Amino acid sequence: MPNDPLSATFAALADPTRRAILARLSKGETSVTELAQPFDMSLPAVTKHLKVLERAGLITRSREAQWRPCRLAPEPLKGANDWLEDYREFWEASLDRLEDYLADVQGQKRPARARKVPTPKKQERGAPP
Amino acid sequence: MPNDPLSATFAALADPTRRAILARLSKGETSVTELAQPFDMSLPAVTKHLKVLERAGLITRSREAQWRPCRLAPEPLKGANDWLEDYREFWEASLDRLEDYLADVQGQKRPARARKVPTPKKQERGAPP
Repeated sequence: MPNDPLSATFAALADPTRRAILARLSKGETSVTELAQPFDMSLPAVTKHLKVLERAGLITRSREAQWRPCRLAPEPLKGANDWLEDYREFWEASLDRLEDYLADVQGQKRPARARKVPTPKKQERGAPP
Repeated sequence: MPNDPLSATFAALADPTRRAILARLSKGETSVTELAQPFDMSLPAVTKHLKVLERAGLITRSREAQWRPCRLAPEPLKGANDWLEDYREFWEASLDRLEDYLADVQGQKRPARARKVPTPKKQERGAPP
């Protein structure tokens, strides 16, 4: 289990079942039994996933009610989003280059190089825009 | 290693060294030796991290030059960002509630419940805003 909060958040999100649990909790708090229902999984297996989410601070379990409802705790997701935002310009530039490339290919009737991402222009090398 | 691309992306990001490598590559492509320099790490340890990043599609290694420069491949970060965007309303609402709570506490001079996130208002329960 990673020590720093950001690594703990990303590690907790690196599993489709845990992401599905968060998606379910985004619709409202619920019990562990109800959470387990849509998954072909034992209750202990679901509990294990919940513990990962709880340690990462992504869910809280109420101690007020006896059924101990789980609730989404979205704050760590903001940290993950903030980290990713620093890279937005790169994926946007990358998509722009792909669009330019496709327009270029269609305009010049060059044969499409299937599934190959275009090489950045020379002046961009070593210092992506 | 997770099978689905989104899990692979999040798993690759769940390590401070790998995030530092991506931060370095956001400044331009470079060699493995140069990448390893700021880390107190053996070259094989760095290579292992690079393999995780490469499998997740977050970096590419050129086969054109003999020094095989590493380059940031930012597209998978967009997928991670898209997933997180669905939760933006929750962390923003959560921050709003915290602000309301703090304003409330300061206004009414109630003793602050240290480190406890305020309970959402009744009508919000079960269906977060």
